Amino acid sequence: MEKRMKRVALIVAAGQGKRFGGAVSKQFVEVHGRPLLWYTLAAFEQCPAIDSMIVILPAAEIAARAEEIAGWGLTKFSAAAAGGAERHDSVLNGLQALPEEAELVAIHDGARPLITPAIIAACVSAAAECGAAFAGVAPKDTIKEAEGGMVTATLDRRRLVLVQTPQVFRVDLIRHAYDMAFDRGAFSTDDAALVEALGHPVRIVPGDYRNIKVTSPEDLLFVQACLEI
Amino acid sequence: MEKRMKRVALIVAAGQGKRFGGAVSKQFVEVHGRPLLWYTLAAFEQCPAIDSMIVILPAAEIAARAEEIAGWGLTKFSAAAAGGAERHDSVLNGLQALPEEAELVAIHDGARPLITPAIIAACVSAAAECGAAFAGVAPKDTIKEAEGGMVTATLDRRRLVLVQTPQVFRVDLIRHAYDMAFDRGAFSTDDAALVEALGHPVRIVPGDYRNIKVTSPEDLLFVQACLEI
Repeated sequence: MEKRMKRVALIVAAGQGKRFGGAVSKQFVEVHGRPLLWYTLAAFEQCPAIDSMIVILPAAEIAARAEEIAGWGLTKFSAAAAGGAERHDSVLNGLQALPEEAELVAIHDGARPLITPAIIAACVSAAAECGAAFAGVAPKDTIKEAEGGMVTATLDRRRLVLVQTPQVFRVDLIRHAYDMAFDRGAFSTDDAALVEALGHPVRIVPGDYRNIKVTSPEDLLFVQACLEI
Repeated sequence: MEKRMKRVALIVAAGQGKRFGGAVSKQFVEVHGRPLLWYTLAAFEQCPAIDSMIVILPAAEIAARAEEIAGWGLTKFSAAAAGGAERHDSVLNGLQALPEEAELVAIHDGARPLITPAIIAACVSAAAECGAAFAGVAPKDTIKEAEGGMVTATLDRRRLVLVQTPQVFRVDLIRHAYDMAFDRGAFSTDDAALVEALGHPVRIVPGDYRNIKVTSPEDLLFVQACLEI
């Protein structure tokens, strides 16, 4: 029986990790002997709500990296797609690489290795109902608005949410949202915002404070420490 | 010559650290053989812009803890004050314990041990000019408004700031702000908000992503990792 790939993870791992200053893209930096991206993919591999995974890789190293990932023995890794100049170019390439039968797509930052199968499943389930859902957490810090280095307002923290990934969408909905964004020339690093711009409801699923995006050396230390527990 | 104590740090270390679930208040949990609070106080000790430190401690253990801190050999540790039921009660006790000559007060969370002397000095300098200033960083994540688990708006991240401590104020200004808050019964966990409520300008000084408030076991791992570098 042919394996159906209705719920596809799109792992965005095309960043050059310039902030790290090293030669290795941050998603391939090793923690406890495994690349960060390995942990990310392992969480999706273990999630029953995900059928297959497409990994978006830096165009310049796609062949070598895809071979490397193929060697990790993950049964759900189905394809690699080439990253573009900006994040939205990369996601667009990934959306074009989806199999025809794909109904839901879970877009996730490759540099969020502490994501759990339970959160992924909850996002997929909410998106299956509502069309669009993402993982988010309440901010721990007070958040203010500022202008020119001066406070202009203190926001009501209880109404705010810090956005994480995965962000899961019905495939037709996110494709339409990207089409509209392309027409308006109004892309975003936040895919959900494009769906919101259509007036479509977006649901928030409880994320996890550990599910950080690794962008600095300290973040890597945090991940290292979390993976030791 | 008598030592003048014009710029006083008020270190709020009165929390019971319930989220840790342990018997030891979180600010006394040890990292690399030193209590978290030791690192916090060491940063203020090393900052030339600070003349003395008052530490606000849990009322039930104030005598023993104050003796412990006195044993750390910090030349600027001048007094302990008892914490109250809520954070604002603790700060109020601290404000009442300020020496008469105090002109500026730097209120800081004891559980932010990664603060640096440079950031403290920058906040003191800005508050000396403007009357009120705090350390803040730009959010790394997208921030949205939500209601009932659904997104209601995506905010412009470029205009937002995550609030850290220290928050530094002219003593007369923060005392007036607390008086007004007391009259209105409108306290906050964010002292700057009370000053904003007076219509007084508040300046933002660049903080540091490492300057987190330790509230969970993962945070402790992060601090541990940062202090190893």
